[in-house]
Amino acid sequence: MLAMLRLFHFPASCSIASHFALEEAGADYELVRVDLANGEQTKTEYLAVNPKGRVPALQTVHGILTETPAILAYIAQVHPAAALAPFDDAFQFARMQSFNAYLSSTVHVAHAHRMRGTRWADDPAAIAEMRRKVPQTMAACFELIERDNLAGPWVLGDRYSVADPYLFTMSLWLAGDGVDVAQFPRVQAFMQCMEARPAIRRVLDARHAAS
Amino acid sequence: MLAMLRLFHFPASCSIASHFALEEAGADYELVRVDLANGEQTKTEYLAVNPKGRVPALQTVHGILTETPAILAYIAQVHPAAALAPFDDAFQFARMQSFNAYLSSTVHVAHAHRMRGTRWADDPAAIAEMRRKVPQTMAACFELIERDNLAGPWVLGDRYSVADPYLFTMSLWLAGDGVDVAQFPRVQAFMQCMEARPAIRRVLDARHAAS
Repeated sequence: MLAMLRLFHFPASCSIASHFALEEAGADYELVRVDLANGEQTKTEYLAVNPKGRVPALQTVHGILTETPAILAYIAQVHPAAALAPFDDAFQFARMQSFNAYLSSTVHVAHAHRMRGTRWADDPAAIAEMRRKVPQTMAACFELIERDNLAGPWVLGDRYSVADPYLFTMSLWLAGDGVDVAQFPRVQAFMQCMEARPAIRRVLDARHAAS
Repeated sequence: MLAMLRLFHFPASCSIASHFALEEAGADYELVRVDLANGEQTKTEYLAVNPKGRVPALQTVHGILTETPAILAYIAQVHPAAALAPFDDAFQFARMQSFNAYLSSTVHVAHAHRMRGTRWADDPAAIAEMRRKVPQTMAACFELIERDNLAGPWVLGDRYSVADPYLFTMSLWLAGDGVDVAQFPRVQAFMQCMEARPAIRRVLDARHAAS
């Protein structure tokens, strides 16, 4: 029997946030690996799934969803028993969405200037200059998160939500982006709490086994 | 008596999307202008409202919200009579959120490389190179929207939602970004439908009167 949800993903990409959320939700899902390392996301077959040529994409019985903040909220909404988003409180839900929007439009974008500079420039010197600034922009993002957006132990305070696997995903990028996470003790403590969660552990182990 | 909601905004910025939505919702709100042209967003007084130093920020009785996709969904959620988001349908709501996430993390980011290149590079030559590519990246975004994301007359088809004022806001930037909207007939028709809406008209007229 087919799974209810299919996640088109690549383990080293932001799509792992949706994978974490599916596992936390106890969802009936399967994974379809899109090999970003070999450009599979630009092939006709995948463009029929997601014309943007990006991961993640989540196939549901109603159609395909893209964009991590929307996918995360959807996973939470269709698995109410897992209580992964504060749907009972418009303001708290908006706080979660605001944080996820910041990760998507500012933090992920800062990170993307390291490996995906060709999105915004063609000249190799300009692309190198963007790459040079990434440690600074990523550190600035995490200074703001450390100071204002991590009540602890989770993003929303005592209440775990899909904002947490998304932040965890970005946190895993810091070392590769030239940022020492030790300068952000709250983020570091948060990462340890995340790594202790069985659902997160299962996804990290599967990624490790696949690589 | 104080208004229930206060929008910190600057008319030429993306914050006008939230202004459109407040007007469409029939919200009890007031505007606080943050003069981006003179750097008011970087002053201590405004950083106490929004430490990111950006607009929009929406002050509610529960606290401050930032990030357009979250603010738009919140405005819709607390004004259910205006029916500005499909909260009764998880998939349609996710589609709306997906579209708004795309506008925020891809379209707005493409646009920002024209005037805000210093976010991602310091070298003036790199900043000029980013600016040069903006007409191309913005056109690519709108090709995707034209082809896949504008069922018409509105983003979600027959159902108007807060995705519409957000797309309209980005559409208003095309000419300044060196993109001729005439190459996107669906977007052009959409803009005409938007301009015919009384709530949108009121906001545009107020902006015109203030400038």
